[in-house]
Amino acid sequence: MSPTTRIPVVEKIFDANDQVAQQNRSLFDLHHTFAINVMASPGAGKTTFILKTLEGLSSKYRMAVIEGDTAPVTIDSDKVSAMGIPVVQINTGGDCHLDAVMLHAGLQSLPLQDVDIVLIENVGNLICPAAFKLGSHLNLLIASIPEGDDKPYKYPNMYRGLDVLVVNKMDLLPYVDFNMAYFQQGVEILNPGLRTFPVSAKTGEGMQAWYNWLDEVVQKHRQK
Amino acid sequence: MSPTTRIPVVEKIFDANDQVAQQNRSLFDLHHTFAINVMASPGAGKTTFILKTLEGLSSKYRMAVIEGDTAPVTIDSDKVSAMGIPVVQINTGGDCHLDAVMLHAGLQSLPLQDVDIVLIENVGNLICPAAFKLGSHLNLLIASIPEGDDKPYKYPNMYRGLDVLVVNKMDLLPYVDFNMAYFQQGVEILNPGLRTFPVSAKTGEGMQAWYNWLDEVVQKHRQK
Repeated sequence: MSPTTRIPVVEKIFDANDQVAQQNRSLFDLHHTFAINVMASPGAGKTTFILKTLEGLSSKYRMAVIEGDTAPVTIDSDKVSAMGIPVVQINTGGDCHLDAVMLHAGLQSLPLQDVDIVLIENVGNLICPAAFKLGSHLNLLIASIPEGDDKPYKYPNMYRGLDVLVVNKMDLLPYVDFNMAYFQQGVEILNPGLRTFPVSAKTGEGMQAWYNWLDEVVQKHRQK
Repeated sequence: MSPTTRIPVVEKIFDANDQVAQQNRSLFDLHHTFAINVMASPGAGKTTFILKTLEGLSSKYRMAVIEGDTAPVTIDSDKVSAMGIPVVQINTGGDCHLDAVMLHAGLQSLPLQDVDIVLIENVGNLICPAAFKLGSHLNLLIASIPEGDDKPYKYPNMYRGLDVLVVNKMDLLPYVDFNMAYFQQGVEILNPGLRTFPVSAKTGEGMQAWYNWLDEVVQKHRQK
């Protein structure tokens, strides 16, 4: 595990991953499917946010979900299925992130020609998913209030690679020490001007602004 | 990144890690230092819990802290230093966990002969740290209430390898959906009889029971 022996192996892995990520992107574009990579630490509310996004946009768009899990449990997939939304579960077999190859395999089980937006729930982790591109059009992080305001400073690689940030569990703000200005300053240093949505996926607060924005982004993407 | 090419490499890494973990353990035992590996997801309250543990036990024991961070920030180390407690920071350079080799290097900067208890703050992650032994006497996980009650089911490898579990942020229980019976059932399946401490490191609730238990464990260990 010394850096000198490890780095070349890791670089080869990243190169191979990026090639497959490109293939995934081509596949999405071929079928006019807009793909969102949803990342977060464990328990930030990824599944609840995804379910609310399905609620908000599935009358306008044909949606689907890919669930990445490190263990073979179907807790999240079952919730999506219960809404009548197509879902594919990828079990990473203990791995700490989805990679492009796993996603490519998962996409074989999804009829992309019938999907306008696919939400890909990555494994709960602020480190590993940042290093593996999937081929998605949007890299989204869900931060959450009880996690604390210092996370951008501690997990800079994650925040640097984002296209959009959701700050979830705003309903818990009165009960925890969270300095929004300090948090936002950290985000701004790493990713200037990053589009940010403060929401509570549980109560629905702030979700409409996210729906509107995503709708606009998807429409623009289609006109390309 | 196909499983067939990956597994042999990973096994060699684990073997090498375990050998160094053994060396770390011998080093701790030589100096009668009791070592605790503190794991948790990002924002579960590792640093606050460590600071409170220092407050509770540093009048009886000579304590020290090792801070594992994925980025070169000193936010946590500075808080420990401010208490006059020796602290060594290990920057993993983007890696998702501490390993035994990193810890071995960090221990060179700590005068173990003057340390009774060392708290090792691992990187915030529920997956990778579970796979890398450090040589510690106690593997401790801090779960937290706002993370949700399904985490044992989703991160079974972490829960299986534990010696003790802390459930932090009990003060937030009234404000979130957390079914304690469902959580405990998941823990019990993976790790029957696991010693568990419900606490709020912020308010101090439940911390005295943890101090008493750790005190007893350290005393017993010394009599070996």
